[in-house]
Amino acid sequence: MVAIPELKTLALYSKQAARILAAASPRAKNAALLAMAHKLQTHKEALYAANRQDLEAAQAAGLSSARLDRLRLSDPVLQDLITGLQQVAAMPDPIGEIEGLQVRPNGLQVGRMRIPLGVIGFIYESRPNATVEASALSLKAGNALLLRGGKEAWQSNHALLQLLQEALLEAGLPQEAIQLVPTTDRGAIVEMCHLSGLLDLIIPRGGKELIELVQREARMPVLAHAEGVNHLFVDETADLESAVQIALNGKTQRPSTCNSLEKVLVHVAVAEQFLPLLARAMDTATVELRGDERTRQVIRIPAASGEDWQTEYLDLILTVKVVDSLDQALEHIARYGSNHTETICTNHYAHAMRFMREVDASLVLVNASPRFNDGFQLGLGAEIGISTSKLHAYGPMGVKELTTTKFVALGQGQVRD
Amino acid sequence: MVAIPELKTLALYSKQAARILAAASPRAKNAALLAMAHKLQTHKEALYAANRQDLEAAQAAGLSSARLDRLRLSDPVLQDLITGLQQVAAMPDPIGEIEGLQVRPNGLQVGRMRIPLGVIGFIYESRPNATVEASALSLKAGNALLLRGGKEAWQSNHALLQLLQEALLEAGLPQEAIQLVPTTDRGAIVEMCHLSGLLDLIIPRGGKELIELVQREARMPVLAHAEGVNHLFVDETADLESAVQIALNGKTQRPSTCNSLEKVLVHVAVAEQFLPLLARAMDTATVELRGDERTRQVIRIPAASGEDWQTEYLDLILTVKVVDSLDQALEHIARYGSNHTETICTNHYAHAMRFMREVDASLVLVNASPRFNDGFQLGLGAEIGISTSKLHAYGPMGVKELTTTKFVALGQGQVRD
Repeated sequence: MVAIPELKTLALYSKQAARILAAASPRAKNAALLAMAHKLQTHKEALYAANRQDLEAAQAAGLSSARLDRLRLSDPVLQDLITGLQQVAAMPDPIGEIEGLQVRPNGLQVGRMRIPLGVIGFIYESRPNATVEASALSLKAGNALLLRGGKEAWQSNHALLQLLQEALLEAGLPQEAIQLVPTTDRGAIVEMCHLSGLLDLIIPRGGKELIELVQREARMPVLAHAEGVNHLFVDETADLESAVQIALNGKTQRPSTCNSLEKVLVHVAVAEQFLPLLARAMDTATVELRGDERTRQVIRIPAASGEDWQTEYLDLILTVKVVDSLDQALEHIARYGSNHTETICTNHYAHAMRFMREVDASLVLVNASPRFNDGFQLGLGAEIGISTSKLHAYGPMGVKELTTTKFVALGQGQVRD
Repeated sequence: MVAIPELKTLALYSKQAARILAAASPRAKNAALLAMAHKLQTHKEALYAANRQDLEAAQAAGLSSARLDRLRLSDPVLQDLITGLQQVAAMPDPIGEIEGLQVRPNGLQVGRMRIPLGVIGFIYESRPNATVEASALSLKAGNALLLRGGKEAWQSNHALLQLLQEALLEAGLPQEAIQLVPTTDRGAIVEMCHLSGLLDLIIPRGGKELIELVQREARMPVLAHAEGVNHLFVDETADLESAVQIALNGKTQRPSTCNSLEKVLVHVAVAEQFLPLLARAMDTATVELRGDERTRQVIRIPAASGEDWQTEYLDLILTVKVVDSLDQALEHIARYGSNHTETICTNHYAHAMRFMREVDASLVLVNASPRFNDGFQLGLGAEIGISTSKLHAYGPMGVKELTTTKFVALGQGQVRD
């Protein structure tokens, strides 16, 4: 376990760096981003060597192939990171922009200026690519970043950090703009949560237990990136072929992601027609179905347990339930949904409008796959994750979501009456 | 101390009410707001009777006249509340509005829909008018509100709550949309902080100790309304007469408010000329000055202690320091400021721009009084307070700041490749 003063010292460096970054020119930040891209290209063998150490240790520890896959650095992964860094460099700089400047009756000019948040603590899984993506977005937004990555990515993260910090220095920016917590001990997470006055925001990405730990301990704002217990409601007027395709895409296009489909609710009026179509498609895709009693009267599948309704499988499993009405579907989603991604298939105008309006989730879709809950897909560009916290940012978080605004007022000597 | 289940039950009612409010029509919400205004008008004698009980108890307990003044309900106070309710009713309804709807290359229409936050916990001082103001803004934004007012306003708050709830019922809305925590025990604050999953936001308004308690204990987002240790920097190029007027207005226009001026930093080049002007004006207004060594070489005032630089007086006291440069002023503000309201008086273009850009405060002013940090003055309409938290809302919080947005996507069967 890292001693508290050590972590606090790191955070103090972050805070100093944040003041410099807040005033840094777009030119310097973009130069650093492009230097990062260049270094990833020219040092990829060193990165692969570090990554191999992580992969071997993870394999020995018996990690699932899905997790090994997320840990692996490869030419396509690096190329995506390089392209991403170049794209972030090419984006307009958000900092210093003044929105909605208006002249008040007394002549005072009032607007909101976009500013960085300050220091962001990012706690994430063993995905080395997240190290680069978070660094790029945080830097563009003028923030300092304190990273706490998963222990399986230890060597990879260190190798990446060295390159990122070299790039910062070459661009004349403080290397403390991006720092790595020098331990993967869980105690360090709690210590980070207590660094009030130093960290302006903590973003925890991972399982429910981690999120709850951070929410309980943190004395600063938390933007949680929690699990997705995502539903599709197939309404009585749905185009059933399209609904099957959306369910199939939602479940199988990349099952390990938080925007995958986990539950299907079917209106009783179309259950007999829809469920066999669904079963056939899912069977072909080797998806295991589980169902409630009424579903099992139509298709022969195992019974769902109470647990099933609240479980994010991240795997080829899907639970199905028959409901009597839109209201019952809304009720079920309000109870079991995790505010992540909720979808309706319908051709009924008022039902589409009610679902869109009443469901509380970071993305609500009508007649489209839940897999679209992603910064690129929704048109934000790169993202640091998908917030299921309602305040500040609800849904994919891009560069703008890592900033805030302050008020500015330009006067000529105005005082209040 | 209230038993935990009791407070939890209240919060469960709030959550149920929030679901109804989120889908309530603008017409119903506005009808409730106008009914509230009408009831304040027609039941003012009952309100004054309850308020008299509070005032007598507070007087017996030896409350300061400033605090008694904030506790008092009177015709002008009620009239302001009535006008405020009518104004909030007349404002456009923010809920359901979709911002920036764009069509993605695959035909998916993506936008952000404005939605309520859900249930808001509001912890505030003994100001009965805040009960009405917070209720009006929360209702307009479609939120349920759980109020925990100061103990000195106990009778007044109960009398007000009864009227507000009657108005809700008359408009066909659940009376649980606005509830009062049935105790002013401090333990109830901690219990509120632990109601995760029920409260979506806590807004604490008050002293440093309260804010820190809530930030430490809360497991949900907190928007702190903390103290204002507000500075005025008088630059070497400032119009000195105007600077004196701004200092005077900032300090004396309403000294008990958080946007009052507490510190003056004077550029050494104008100290000899400016300080006697400042001393004369403050003397006339019976403001006590305290100064650092260099200030005291110019004007004869008591020495400031180390404490003085970080104290919010809320009283007719002002601390003065001589600095060598803009950089030294920025350094001092970064160290001692409380991210509330910071002002520069200057005629130097680059200094104005740097100050505006580099100072981290909810409002940064050039050549105007800090007293403008107020929702009405900045053009937002009514406010529930001034947030010194950077995320979500930084500065005055109006109706819009009590909402958030979710993503909505309207498709025609789109799936991801």
